[in-house]
Formats: sequence, C-alpha cells, structure tokens
Amino acid sequence: MSNNCFGKYFTLTTFGESHGAMIGGVIDGCPSDVLIDLDLIAKDMARRRPGQGGFTSPRVEEDHFEIVSGIYEGKTTGAPIAFLIKNKDYKKEAYTPINHLYRPGHATFTYHKKYGHFDPHGGGRASARETAVRVAAGAIAKQVIQDVSIAAEVVEVGGEKSDFDRVLQKAQDEGDSLGAIIECRIEGLEAGIGEPVYDKLEARLAYAMMSLPATKGFEIGSGFKCAKMKGSEHNDLFDVDGEGDVHLSSNNHGGTLGGISTGEAVVFRVAFKPTSSIKKAQNTVDMSGNKAVLDYPKTARHDVCVALRAPVIVEAMAALSLCDLILINRCSKNFS
Amino acid sequence: MSNNCFGKYFTLTTFGESHGAMIGGVIDGCPSDVLIDLDLIAKDMARRRPGQGGFTSPRVEEDHFEIVSGIYEGKTTGAPIAFLIKNKDYKKEAYTPINHLYRPGHATFTYHKKYGHFDPHGGGRASARETAVRVAAGAIAKQVIQDVSIAAEVVEVGGEKSDFDRVLQKAQDEGDSLGAIIECRIEGLEAGIGEPVYDKLEARLAYAMMSLPATKGFEIGSGFKCAKMKGSEHNDLFDVDGEGDVHLSSNNHGGTLGGISTGEAVVFRVAFKPTSSIKKAQNTVDMSGNKAVLDYPKTARHDVCVALRAPVIVEAMAALSLCDLILINRCSKNFS
Amino acid sequence: MSNNCFGKYFTLTTFGESHGAMIGGVIDGCPSDVLIDLDLIAKDMARRRPGQGGFTSPRVEEDHFEIVSGIYEGKTTGAPIAFLIKNKDYKKEAYTPINHLYRPGHATFTYHKKYGHFDPHGGGRASARETAVRVAAGAIAKQVIQDVSIAAEVVEVGGEKSDFDRVLQKAQDEGDSLGAIIECRIEGLEAGIGEPVYDKLEARLAYAMMSLPATKGFEIGSGFKCAKMKGSEHNDLFDVDGEGDVHLSSNNHGGTLGGISTGEAVVFRVAFKPTSSIKKAQNTVDMSGNKAVLDYPKTARHDVCVALRAPVIVEAMAALSLCDLILINRCSKNFS
Amino acid sequence: MSNNCFGKYFTLTTFGESHGAMIGGVIDGCPSDVLIDLDLIAKDMARRRPGQGGFTSPRVEEDHFEIVSGIYEGKTTGAPIAFLIKNKDYKKEAYTPINHLYRPGHATFTYHKKYGHFDPHGGGRASARETAVRVAAGAIAKQVIQDVSIAAEVVEVGGEKSDFDRVLQKAQDEGDSLGAIIECRIEGLEAGIGEPVYDKLEARLAYAMMSLPATKGFEIGSGFKCAKMKGSEHNDLFDVDGEGDVHLSSNNHGGTLGGISTGEAVVFRVAFKPTSSIKKAQNTVDMSGNKAVLDYPKTARHDVCVALRAPVIVEAMAALSLCDLILINRCSKNFS
Repeated sequence: MSNNCFGKYFTLTTFGESHGAMIGGVIDGCPSDVLIDLDLIAKDMARRRPGQGGFTSPRVEEDHFEIVSGIYEGKTTGAPIAFLIKNKDYKKEAYTPINHLYRPGHATFTYHKKYGHFDPHGGGRASARETAVRVAAGAIAKQVIQDVSIAAEVVEVGGEKSDFDRVLQKAQDEGDSLGAIIECRIEGLEAGIGEPVYDKLEARLAYAMMSLPATKGFEIGSGFKCAKMKGSEHNDLFDVDGEGDVHLSSNNHGGTLGGISTGEAVVFRVAFKPTSSIKKAQNTVDMSGNKAVLDYPKTARHDVCVALRAPVIVEAMAALSLCDLILINRCSKNFS
Repeated sequence: MSNNCFGKYFTLTTFGESHGAMIGGVIDGCPSDVLIDLDLIAKDMARRRPGQGGFTSPRVEEDHFEIVSGIYEGKTTGAPIAFLIKNKDYKKEAYTPINHLYRPGHATFTYHKKYGHFDPHGGGRASARETAVRVAAGAIAKQVIQDVSIAAEVVEVGGEKSDFDRVLQKAQDEGDSLGAIIECRIEGLEAGIGEPVYDKLEARLAYAMMSLPATKGFEIGSGFKCAKMKGSEHNDLFDVDGEGDVHLSSNNHGGTLGGISTGEAVVFRVAFKPTSSIKKAQNTVDMSGNKAVLDYPKTARHDVCVALRAPVIVEAMAALSLCDLILINRCSKNFS
Repeated sequence: MSNNCFGKYFTLTTFGESHGAMIGGVIDGCPSDVLIDLDLIAKDMARRRPGQGGFTSPRVEEDHFEIVSGIYEGKTTGAPIAFLIKNKDYKKEAYTPINHLYRPGHATFTYHKKYGHFDPHGGGRASARETAVRVAAGAIAKQVIQDVSIAAEVVEVGGEKSDFDRVLQKAQDEGDSLGAIIECRIEGLEAGIGEPVYDKLEARLAYAMMSLPATKGFEIGSGFKCAKMKGSEHNDLFDVDGEGDVHLSSNNHGGTLGGISTGEAVVFRVAFKPTSSIKKAQNTVDMSGNKAVLDYPKTARHDVCVALRAPVIVEAMAALSLCDLILINRCSKNFS
Repeated sequence: MSNNCFGKYFTLTTFGESHGAMIGGVIDGCPSDVLIDLDLIAKDMARRRPGQGGFTSPRVEEDHFEIVSGIYEGKTTGAPIAFLIKNKDYKKEAYTPINHLYRPGHATFTYHKKYGHFDPHGGGRASARETAVRVAAGAIAKQVIQDVSIAAEVVEVGGEKSDFDRVLQKAQDEGDSLGAIIECRIEGLEAGIGEPVYDKLEARLAYAMMSLPATKGFEIGSGFKCAKMKGSEHNDLFDVDGEGDVHLSSNNHGGTLGGISTGEAVVFRVAFKPTSSIKKAQNTVDMSGNKAVLDYPKTARHDVCVALRAPVIVEAMAALSLCDLILINRCSKNFS
C-alpha cells in the first residue's frame, strides 16, 4: 500500500532519483506465458525521450534499459519483472547553484516540509525522469492486454487546437512555456471492466493521470461540458444492432456506466500545466527563509511544453490501470 | 484492496443496496480517544437528504442512523466504527415495471455484463443512496482532523453561474434535468500532506471524486485553464512574510506542489452530469436484447440536478481522503 | 490494509465488541452467482456455540444471524455480503467488579497500553465472541470453494491423545483449564494454489491460525518433528500412477512445496493455550498500578478448554484463506 | 498486495531468480532521516553467506551489494531504498542435466503446475538465494528500530540440543541432511505493538517465518507445550515493581497478550526441515510424466543443514515485521 507502488493486483513499484545512478521498476502480478517484445518497449521509450523535436529539451537522455528478472525464453514466468534504466551522464553539479532555492512550480518546498532530509538535485523523485519507468512498465502492460488499443495525442496547446508550432515558437522565443491538453482513446475494451463503487474505471484513470507530474485536470466523455447539458441530451441511449449486440447511440459517458466499461470507446482528457522551469528570473525564497531570485543557468535545457512528450506516458498509465482491472475482473463471476 | 473499501490506512468499507433492508459502513484505522459528536453526523446527513428544496427529489428518505461499535463513553476506542442506516419504507415493487430494461445513464447494463446475476431493483449498489454512507463516514473523518476546514458549494448549474433557480425551474417544467459544477475549498491543512509519485494529494482527491456517481471531471487549482496559460503566469512564486513564514503569491497549483500540500488552500472542482432519470420517454433495450421504451412511472421522483445535494458528499470524500493521508504522514520522518 | 480486515482479494472486515449491541462482518470480493445455503451457515455457527457439552461454557449464546446485503434470490451478486449477529442478553454489569483489573492471559493490559481509551467490558474486540463472525464468513467461503473439503478436530487435550473427558472432568473439578491441539485436513485442493515467496500457502495459513485468540503454535506436515529427521526420510518422492498422474509417495511437506499446493492433502496443527479465565484466585494489578487479586464471580461461566469449540473456527480461517488464494490464482496464467 | 511484496506500510518488494544476473529489493515506507550504516548490512549478509563453516555449502557466493536510491548523505530521504545484489559467477549449465526432473522437496513441480512456463534453473524464485535480499532489507529495518534488539540462534539440530557438530558430521558422511530449530528473542520492544484481531504480532511473525523456504512450524512462548498445561500454570501474572512499572511474573505468552506486545521479551521458535538436496539417488518423475532417478552431480554443493545459516534470516524477517507494526502504531492514538 506504500506510495511508490501503483496498482492493486498488477502492481508497479518504482525507485530512483533523477540524478542518481539509475531508476527502475518492479512489476508484480504479471501472468506467466506472455510474450514480451523488447522492441515495443524501446519504441514507447523513444516516444518519451527528450531531444526529439524543436520544442522538447535538447538534453540527450539515452535510456539504458535492461530487464533483469521475470522473463525466460522471451516470455513472462509469473515472477516479478524488474528493470533498470541507468542515468547516463547525469551531472549533479549542474544543480549546485540553485539547490538551496525553492523553485516555483517544483516540489523542493513540499519535500523539504515533509521529509526534512532529502536529495535536492534536480527533481529527485519528483522529476519527470521518473516517468521513463512508467512508460517502460506501460509498454509491458500493453502486451499483457494486447486486444485493447490505447492511443493518446495532444489536442490543445496554449489555447490553440491546431498549428501548435506557431505558439510553441513564440513561447520559446520569449523564454516562456505553455500548457496543453492530451486526449486518450481506448478501443477494444470489453464490457464489464472496472469495479463498482470506489474502484470505478474513471476513478482509477483519474487517479493514474493526476499522479503524473504537471497534471491539473481530468475529464471523461462529456467531461466539464456535462455541466451545461440537459439529461435528455446527455443520456446515451441503448440500441441493438442486426446481430443482436447492444450498443450506445452516443458516448457522452466516455465508455463507462456506473464505473464499469460499456464496450464503447473510453475517451478521456488530461490538462498539463506549462513547464515550471522557464528562462525568466523569478522571485523566490531559499531554504533558510531568505528572499532570493531564481535564474536558471543559461545552459539549462527545458521543454517549452511538457505535454508534447506526454501522450505515451498517458497511454502507459492507462495500460497499467486497465491491466490491473482486467486481471481482477477474472474473479467477478463464479465459474466452478 | 477490494472494491468496496475506500482508503489505505483509515478505511471505509461499505455494504447494502438501495432497496435492501439497510446500508452501512465500517471505518477501520480510526485513532482512539477522538470525541465524536453525533449531532455533527446528523447535520451532514440532513444536508444530503432528498426532499429539502424545490428541485430535489421529494422522496422521504429518513436516515435511521446507528453506530454499533467502536465508540465507548462518547470517544473512539481504536476499534472499527460500524454504523447502519436502515432503508425505511423502501418499495421494491415500484421498480417492477422497469426492472427488465437497461436504463440510459444507469449501471444496469454494465452490472448485467459484469456479474450476470445481480439485484435490478433501483440502483442496487450503484444507487446514489450509497452516498449516505459516505456522508456519515465523512462526518466522522472531519472530527478526526478537526483543524482542517472543508467547504463545498455548487458554483454552476446548467451553464449558469448564478440564479440557479431560474434554470432549474425550466428544466423541471420540461421533465428534464441539469448538470452542475461543485467547488470545494480546504483550509488549515498543514504543508507536507500527500505522498510523492503515485499517492499525490490531487491523485487521491481525483480518485475520491470520480468514484462518486454522476461525476465526469475533476480539476485542481487552475485546472483545465492551465492549458491556456504560460509558465510565467502559472508559476506561484514563493515569498516570506514578516514572521518568516513562507507563502505563495498566488495559488494556481491549488494548494499542492509535487503532490504534497503547500499549506495554501486546496481548491478543486468536480463536474456532475445531469440526472439520468428524466420524465421523458427514452428508447432503450431490455435484458433479453429487444428494443423497448423506458418511461418512468408518473409517481417516480427524481432530482432535477443531483449536484444540489452533493456538496456534503464532496466534502465527505475529501475528509476521508485527507484523514487517511494525514495519519499516514505520521510515518514520514524518523523521530526515534 | 487495516487491521480488522482479513484477506487480500476475498476479504472479511469485522466489527463489534463482545458486550455491544451486535457484532458483524462484511465479505468483499465474493464472485457473483454462488448459491448460498443459509442452513450450512447455521450448522457451522451451532458447532461454535457454547453450552453444548459438559465442558464448554453453559452460557446461552444464541446467534441471531442475519445477512443484510449481497445476496439476491439465494445467490451472491458480487456486491459485499454484510451480516449481523445480535448480542442477545449481554450484561455489561456482570463485568463491573473486575473491569478495573488487568486479567491474566487477557488483553486488557495491552489494549490499555495501546489505546489509552477502550471498552473494558468482557473481552471487547479481543473476546472469543468475535470468532462467531469468522465462522459465519468461513461458512460462506466454504460454499464458494465447494470442491475443497476442510475438516478439523481436536487431537490432544491436556497432554492426552484420547479419553479427553477424563482429563477435562478433573480440570473442571479443580476449577482449572486445559490446553489442546487441533488438526485440520484439507482435501480436494488442486495443485498450484498459494503464491511464491511471501504469500506461501503455509504462511497464509499460519497467519490465519495465529490470528485466532489463544493460539500459541502452528505446524504443517511433519512440523516440529522435521527437526529430528534426515533429508532422506523427509523428502516426499514423486511417483506416477497408472493414469499418468503425478503423486507424492509420502506427505511430510503437508501438501505444499515452495509454498504452493501439490494436490496432496494439506495437513496442519494448531496449539491452543488453556482458557485464561479460571475459578482460582490470581494475583494481578489494577489499572491504577496497585496490586490486586482477581477472583472471577462465582456465576462466571467459562470453557474448561477453549479448543473444544474451535475446530469449526480453524476450518473457517482455512476456508477464508483458501478462497482468497484460489480466486487470486485465476490471474496466474495468460489466457488471452 | 501482490505476492512479491512483504509488509503493509513499511514494505519490501523483491525480484530476481537464483541464476539470473541479479536479485534485489525495494524498501518503501522508510521514514526520512535514518542514518544507515552499510557495514551493519555487510555484517548481516556475511552471516548468511555459504562457505563459512564445515557444514554449509562451500559454494562461493560473494554478495555484490549496492544501494541505488533512497539514501542521501548517509541518511534515508523517505524515498524508496532500492538495492541490487549481483549473482556473480552463476552457472546455468550446472543444472542442465536435472532441469527436466521434479526434484523431491523442491518447488519445480508446483511452479510447473501453477505457471506452465517458468525458469527451471536452480531454485529460480524459490531458491534460498532470495533470502539474501531479506537479510539486506532486514539489516536496514534493524537500523530504523534501533532500540529493539533481535537475536536468533540454532537451539536444536537433528534432535540434539547441543554438540551439533557430532550429528552434522555423521549426516555429511552419509550424504544426508538434518532439520533444526531456531529460537529468536526480541528485547526492548515497548508495550502496545501489534494490531488487534487479525494483525496480531504473533500472526505477523508466524506469517513472516512460514514465508521462509524450508520452514514447517512456528510457535511463540510456551508454544505447542501449552497443550499439556493447565491455565493456572500457563497464565502469566501481573505484578508491579518498586518504580510502579507493571511486569509479568513469567512469560508463557512469549511477550504478547491479545496479539499486542506486553513489554516482556518476545520469544518464538521456527522449525526448519532437512535440506532437500542430498547426495543420495532418489526416485522421481520428469516433466513429461516418466519415472526417473535424481542423482545430483558429484560437484553439487549443498548445506548439510539449511538452518545453520538461517538465524540472521529469521532476525531479518522479524525486523521487517516489527518495523512495519511499530510505524503503523504511530496512528493508534489521537494526538491532535
């Protein structure tokens, strides 16, 4: 139940700080006999890596990924799957000049309050580096539930719904950053997934997404727009097709009813705040309680918009959540 | 870890169907020696009860509330606190004519798919009746963390930010229903609450709120608006006051950084869909797969807007979540 | 994860004190569509009830048992199964004269230390009365895993392996009490049940049995005798029968290897201490720290040997543990 | 809640197979600001290592131990503490000739039944190699609860209570193995530790010990002897000393009452079966269901008695269990 463990039956336990020797994770509860294609993991990790487009951090963050247990002859054995991602070429020194400052939008202040003693280099545990572990684990989860398709994309940046490059370029030129919205669509999920009352599918997805760094909002189906709708507009009506299968005539509920999947596409959106690290001087306070100014070193490299690399992270968290709920659903009915 | 249990250390396990003899809950993990004022529980339960204003269901739902364990001489003993709420005057027959239909916006279809065998009367476990248990438990949790103040209110109904009665009356006259947004404000929460990485304060709150019936969205602080902001606007700057206390100059983060409370107010919003049960005929399908029409009996009584009674439910879920995280935080530092 | 919850997926959460209005439990994680025969529950509860033979407490403890949720038309629905057992005719006054004393062998001292404030009447939560809830839940668990047979019996009393009545009569005449050993035999359990490493079948059974009041030891298969054996004697050899099924030529391991069931009978034993309440004056200390003498009221009624009524309790705890492990095992292999 | 995670709040998640590249663990829930002395870890790991005396396996099993997260400037940070132990010089080939056989006393048969696909080299996850991770984690737990002293020793080997070398030599000469009993004594544990009803201190210790490979029994205090005792003999009487402190006049209960520590020494014993791997030919069956003979290669090296190296493992499991219960106990009382 501890805080570095995600999930209930199919769980991911993670470790490592942004500027330590390595980060990594342990997946527990994975069924045996699942073929694991390492290329699919590499592919997802490449989607998250910085230095890819004009507006992500040019920092080279090669992921030295290695699975050290739980797989034999290419297939899972039911034993825990542990993997390590080495932090190559990390430089603790880069942070020395600003280590003593509470950085706006970052967790240094709250970690200091909570733990007293902690590692102030980079983001430590709170760093976005930690999401590399989620992506690797998510890529494994996707292979356990391979009939389900999960696809996320950025649908809004800095208030714009298209031509993202235009606003990104402007923010970059100003040394500023932008927020964004990511939409995720899950297809091929059978009806009956999600647990009633507390472990509703949307509750688990919201928990997963709001556990990501920089997220400020989650909505499913009609989302916040539902507050402007009437019941007669919002209700999705049941219909039956030529083959006798029941379908919904619309999908305002985003693929769930009572917290359980309907068989329709699950569609949700996540709001990401603008990158907290910007190239503008900011007033702040140091750890001794004195006023100070934070000015990131000129060499510091930050994403203009953290959400650009986040679709694969959103997919990973969805995959981990679904894998857990799909496995647990095996226990819902008597089949003795 | 099962699905009818909410929380990790301070837990609420619930039971009962909307049309059974009773519903109830068991709180486990409550510290000993906490004074429990039953009037405060009654007061919160009264806020949730239907039949109070013009736009809530006129159904009389008296709550026969009784605590049967865990309290001795007015104070908690550390033993589980169990309580029962009798379903007085429930009529299974009222649902007989529509029991065989999948009701739009309701969970009958998904429960049927998941369990095969289930109780089709009213909402069963998925009924809003279950939230009475959450409110009672929340009223106890509030007394465990009495230095924290939690206050929720409806801030938008059917797209309007004021004069709610006007739109509610119109919807009622049309036999229709409306969605709404509730905002909740938590004050007096010390810095350091919430766990890093997965059990972030906002992740736990999102999970709690999205586990409520009829919720479609959750946002904290700037919420979805953050996607239209620049980092230089969104960052809350640290400042120090005359007494040497560190404060934030704004609160776009809604009271957390890195998932841990900053000491500022925690502010979040929840979107509630329009009531699914409306007084208009709706096309649907029956449990045998035949097309059908759902027309609720003329005597059926529904809320025009479920959110009107929900502020106290939102507060309850926030209180349960915070109580859990505040207790667990006692283990964060070495004090031997 | 709280302390009044037993199990991981198929869980039992309990509540109630020995001298409160009622005790009860909530089973969560029970699959839908399991036929529940109430007579089987009543039968098991009757086996635990006092006042049955010459050497159990003559106290009349009728069990007013009622299931209030989770069952519809005689079958489980997948919703939590809650049940209440009313404490009829309990008399708090009976304990008044000794409430202020630490009773030897009882939990008053440790509850006082742990909680400060607690209910000192009878055993409170620590009372053997709580085991009635375990028996009721166990009787339900047995019906979920009906292909498995679980049978426990007393095999030793006060050092004797037969003619128990003789030593029991002597102890009763002396106002004293006796310890005993119970053996439990589980048959029909398929190979593969139990989880590797920490949740070994024997670890879960040991946990279950040592959570019972008055137990001081647990052993499986050869048990403590294994310490006097050689490997060549202790190893159970694999053999194959005419139908090609693999069997073990002996069962020193008690039905598990590496913590997972072999398909052979699971056989374990549990040691129960002598009843702590005896009809002899005992030196003790009161809650204010003064020396005192405990002399139970002449009207107090105690079992000469608590283990006599315990076989059905041992079976219940085994059934709850197995039900949990059998359900979880549904997730061990890929079957997509 | 998955099976490779031990504990509830202070948890240890482990990974790795006996013949993989490495084994390791992640401790989650460790408070910040605890000084960790690596030498104490090395010392405990040395106690477990084979090749030390005449009767333990001469196999060289150097432990390349490395902590990769959670410690900064010598003290814990509250972040997960991950550590790796490289399997230097492991030879998968050594097992090739016997990989297809079900080995008596080993888990190959049950893993095959449970998972279908698994790694048959050495013991895999079921190997005693995995206990190196427990010892490392236990050495950290001991430092978190440094006021508690935990000491285990072998008290019986092959039925003898002294002169162990004599019987060990004989068994070794015969190519056979011996069982043994380990006793553990915990001192300095305050009263009030352990949770009522299910998470009793003895239940958690029993679970911990029976999760170890090769254990067949657990007893606390009087243990199985209690079954031969009278209540008047078995009850530990309360007394008060000159300083007003309450003590027990004897310790048949082994340091707990009602599952909660009394402040007296906690004393328990664990039975270990004889090593399953012996230098004698044994009849068995292969994975295809054919009769076969298992004859370990002449070069195979096994302990004559696995318990000889196990005291430090027993201590580690006790330390992990206590650390969890001591931390959780911080939540037992109201202190707002």
